[in-house]
Amino acid sequence: MIIDCHGHYTTAPPALKAFRQAQLARLADASLPEPELGEITDAEIRESIEGNQLRLLRERAGDLMIFSPQASAMEHHVPDPATADAWARASNALIARVVDLFPEHFAGACQLPQTPGGPLDASVAELRRCVEELGFVGCNLNPDPSGGHWTSPPLTDEYWFPLYEAMVELDVPAMIHVSASCNPTAHTLGAHYLNADTSAFMQLVDGDLFAEFPALRFVIPHGGGAVPYHWGRYRGLADRLGRPPLDGHVMRNVFFDTCVYHQAGIDLLGRVIDVENVLFASEMLGAVRGIDPETGFHWDDTKRYVDALDLSEDDERKVFELNARRVYPRLDAQLSARGR
Amino acid sequence: MIIDCHGHYTTAPPALKAFRQAQLARLADASLPEPELGEITDAEIRESIEGNQLRLLRERAGDLMIFSPQASAMEHHVPDPATADAWARASNALIARVVDLFPEHFAGACQLPQTPGGPLDASVAELRRCVEELGFVGCNLNPDPSGGHWTSPPLTDEYWFPLYEAMVELDVPAMIHVSASCNPTAHTLGAHYLNADTSAFMQLVDGDLFAEFPALRFVIPHGGGAVPYHWGRYRGLADRLGRPPLDGHVMRNVFFDTCVYHQAGIDLLGRVIDVENVLFASEMLGAVRGIDPETGFHWDDTKRYVDALDLSEDDERKVFELNARRVYPRLDAQLSARGR
Repeated sequence: MIIDCHGHYTTAPPALKAFRQAQLARLADASLPEPELGEITDAEIRESIEGNQLRLLRERAGDLMIFSPQASAMEHHVPDPATADAWARASNALIARVVDLFPEHFAGACQLPQTPGGPLDASVAELRRCVEELGFVGCNLNPDPSGGHWTSPPLTDEYWFPLYEAMVELDVPAMIHVSASCNPTAHTLGAHYLNADTSAFMQLVDGDLFAEFPALRFVIPHGGGAVPYHWGRYRGLADRLGRPPLDGHVMRNVFFDTCVYHQAGIDLLGRVIDVENVLFASEMLGAVRGIDPETGFHWDDTKRYVDALDLSEDDERKVFELNARRVYPRLDAQLSARGR
Repeated sequence: MIIDCHGHYTTAPPALKAFRQAQLARLADASLPEPELGEITDAEIRESIEGNQLRLLRERAGDLMIFSPQASAMEHHVPDPATADAWARASNALIARVVDLFPEHFAGACQLPQTPGGPLDASVAELRRCVEELGFVGCNLNPDPSGGHWTSPPLTDEYWFPLYEAMVELDVPAMIHVSASCNPTAHTLGAHYLNADTSAFMQLVDGDLFAEFPALRFVIPHGGGAVPYHWGRYRGLADRLGRPPLDGHVMRNVFFDTCVYHQAGIDLLGRVIDVENVLFASEMLGAVRGIDPETGFHWDDTKRYVDALDLSEDDERKVFELNARRVYPRLDAQLSARGR
């Protein structure tokens, strides 16, 4: 089977956005009533999925997508904790409804109610709720809730440990994924996302987090940002900085997805990164939509690029399925329980 | 001939660092005397170059390096304009002495006395001095003088235009190069440098700077950050954002160097980026030193990787020489005047 580990609900019904706008309006004017998420029917959800992610999943021979709220809409830069909490709960509730309507095709990963520099208690609680009550299999962790100002400590800092303890206990990984950039120097889709991937990886190289949390697992999306292209630089820096070789130090716990939108990029990823560390993903419908005039296919139809790697049958199964089942053991358990 | 377009004086005599420390001490205690750069003999400079950059240049069959002050030591985050100015002048003066001692092997590129958010008058003046009086052929432009907090406007903003006007008038390019990171989330060598390359490129995609300055030229170092690995993403984003195709919109004015420290990375660069836009460079002795145990050669011996691209003789000459002479016309004029 083919598991796409990185998809966001970028096509959610308009009531979700209206709820968010009402939240922001109330932050600007406290006299407004506390907003409630308007009614969203099952038919609306079906329509928003069947014509989009599910259609493309089927067209591209995919089976299941690990599905989370729209990344750029997480907006962790808004500092009010109650707003962040209500927003994460509403966004995650919709993901749960998608999973309930299409259990064969979607598994949930949750948005956390992070705020810049805020305590992580609410994030831990929401993670627990989503995993234990809603059956989610992972979460998205934002290493820069400020949105491009990078005011939080590195991922190796104790600030993050309460979340890691819960992740290890629940046996769920985090995808490291920032939200929209509030910094005009860093375009959300063309710089901030990739830079966050790169910074996060280097934080892990420079630190020793996995000695503290040997069972912790991170998926770094967008093909690992700049990392595979500069793999020699990272190997050399680890050496120069007196860190252990990357394979044992970082790559037992870190995985890259395949959201790289051209053949040459995926070829590089396949060449330098061990096949055990690569998880198939497309992020459709995400940052890059439309058809590449050079190929005649959608830029984000990443399965074509992976197919063209010409992996052995065993390795192909790792990238498309087995690595995801290993990194997301709760997904594996759900699939196994259904005989898949 | 082989021109390495990216080298820093990372081996400068200790008096330069002592001068910097005295500058910083005086900023902390204004009662201290204004520091002066201690005497540095020609012999000291010869020794610092002959055993290092020049030795490696010769060993690796290189002819000439475009040479600038140590990037991480530019420290544009220190906000005092007079300090920045004296520091740039001292650092550039040493580069001029290297060039005077080894005119066959080095050409100068200057450090600018930038400060976070400060006016660019002093930078324009120092650029003029270095080009017109010292014979420099380019400059290093820091898009984030704050050192990882990204408080300056994007490179497409009018804030930068006075510098661009001078660059166009003097017909010199800038290498876009940040200095040390003051943000613990972004490791200087493993994240900040690459992220700056990526952010700068996307700023140029998102804007329309080269319509305003058609003769302006930027070299984006470190192989273009994350950009070539995500070339499909950038082509797709340009399309989605309604920007023109990258070749006419950005790639007439933007060039990537070859500071990518493994064969797979250079292979990708050669595959996706037009040969007209690639300038040979090694950044030795820079971020990554020592020998790659997988190859037995120095990580930063980038000529080996470019040689292995198996370019046609014409294309090889472009990457090793002709593109640099085109992007740095003052270097070309100097070489031509010497019959090279």
